[in-house]
Amino acid sequence: MKEQFFPYIQNLQDQITQKFESLDHLGQFKEENWERPEGGGGRTRVLEKGAVFEKGGVNISAVHGELPKSMQDYFKVGESTFYACGLSLVIHPKNPMVPTVHANFRYFEMYNKQGELQDQWFGGGLDLTPYYLIQEDVQHFHQCCKNSCDAFDASFYPSFKKQCDDYFWNTHRNEARGVGGLFFDYLKPTETISLQDRYDFVTKVGDNFLNAYVPILQRRKNYRYTPQQRTWQEIRRGRYVEFNLIHDKGTLFGLKTNGRIESILMSLPSHVQWKYDFQPENGSEEAALIAVLEQPQEWV
Amino acid sequence: MKEQFFPYIQNLQDQITQKFESLDHLGQFKEENWERPEGGGGRTRVLEKGAVFEKGGVNISAVHGELPKSMQDYFKVGESTFYACGLSLVIHPKNPMVPTVHANFRYFEMYNKQGELQDQWFGGGLDLTPYYLIQEDVQHFHQCCKNSCDAFDASFYPSFKKQCDDYFWNTHRNEARGVGGLFFDYLKPTETISLQDRYDFVTKVGDNFLNAYVPILQRRKNYRYTPQQRTWQEIRRGRYVEFNLIHDKGTLFGLKTNGRIESILMSLPSHVQWKYDFQPENGSEEAALIAVLEQPQEWV
Repeated sequence: MKEQFFPYIQNLQDQITQKFESLDHLGQFKEENWERPEGGGGRTRVLEKGAVFEKGGVNISAVHGELPKSMQDYFKVGESTFYACGLSLVIHPKNPMVPTVHANFRYFEMYNKQGELQDQWFGGGLDLTPYYLIQEDVQHFHQCCKNSCDAFDASFYPSFKKQCDDYFWNTHRNEARGVGGLFFDYLKPTETISLQDRYDFVTKVGDNFLNAYVPILQRRKNYRYTPQQRTWQEIRRGRYVEFNLIHDKGTLFGLKTNGRIESILMSLPSHVQWKYDFQPENGSEEAALIAVLEQPQEWV
Repeated sequence: MKEQFFPYIQNLQDQITQKFESLDHLGQFKEENWERPEGGGGRTRVLEKGAVFEKGGVNISAVHGELPKSMQDYFKVGESTFYACGLSLVIHPKNPMVPTVHANFRYFEMYNKQGELQDQWFGGGLDLTPYYLIQEDVQHFHQCCKNSCDAFDASFYPSFKKQCDDYFWNTHRNEARGVGGLFFDYLKPTETISLQDRYDFVTKVGDNFLNAYVPILQRRKNYRYTPQQRTWQEIRRGRYVEFNLIHDKGTLFGLKTNGRIESILMSLPSHVQWKYDFQPENGSEEAALIAVLEQPQEWV
């Protein structure tokens, strides 16, 4: 399976970065190939100061070796070796009318001390973080998520949509990071679903990523905005930073297992503000966003 | 002891906020009194957009009640009640030539289920986070720290200085948050040191806070700086955010024990930047700062 999935994410990284570069006449991805001392490595592509994209990273990695102690505890296994590969992206557009988007597609294999395969699964998803709520855009994004799911199983979308709302929850703020999308993990083969079926599903979601996001970007990237709207975007980006540094399991594992810091923290936006006790005005568009973040909605 | 220490920090908050207001003709502290549903409360004072101070908070609180489960585990005790009071401040000046400063002075009491006092201790310290390294300033700050300590015990400064370097260590970056100062915790009475001695020491350090910081502020607050130096300051502030959200025990306990979010996160700077893989030029002043953060120094 790793010989099938890793080439897939290599190719997906190419497709996504080419598409984004074609949409931004100023920005170009800077590529960095890195190696992990303990085994494996990755290809990081980061774009900064584009016309459309203020900062974005589309990274792939394939790492293997001894499972670090902290991850042994997390997975409740003894000494093991592992293989993990995945694509991870975060895009912070400049225009506050364009949402931030995040996606991740990953595959994991775990081996015992004798090198025998013990477990294998897929994980991933995609989610949207708007600064201003434009119903049509959120509905489009969720409809694409649902379409990818419904081709496989009618229970997938409601289940993975809820897992997404649950996962991207800023507990200390009592609000969602954004308007969600899909989140799935530990997608293992079952009696009726083969590992190949899991691959087909995850790659279907991956193939649909650009369809889910690019139309929104194209519709909104030239919208006019005020300095006040820009400030609101930077304040909300602060909540994004809070989630990623306090709650996000992927970020914290990366930091605790000696991952490549700059590849992990490329997810943080370029310009961020924290104002003390900032509250949007009652009835404002900003307050309308908060209301939806406090109470996740059904979009399709 | 709480009847002695809480009035002390109330008074110290007044002294510090009055002094800072007198140094900033634009900025004024906004005061907020808050109550903790489970018992106690606090008085938060935050100043934003001053001429000298870009953002700063000087907060006191006195809270009590059942010890939350997560803190029972942390302190390795069973069901208990507690009392805790303290002053906590973080000042982010506008001018990159003026360091950020943090200080905290706190007192803790722990009771068993029968309401009998089981344990009591002081904790706290102060530390400096410069954006440009001006030896004279760092030496002055550490000399003040040492003076407060030496009046009590010659072993205090070396011990609490080292604890400060160890505590404010950004493990994922392999560098210190700043140039340190003092950090102490669990200062309990011993056979030769009474609780009153502990009080005398902690309040001595508190009384010396303004002496340690204000002369630096006055010397540097009108220094000229370039937009590039401002950008560097905002990038370094990103490391401050990373430390507080990933590693700082006080912040994380606050967030996990239902503290008042806006009082806890007032420590975050107003404007922050993250650039991908930013490296200062060899031989630059920025590189000189990093060298010292990677390898904590003896200053006095």
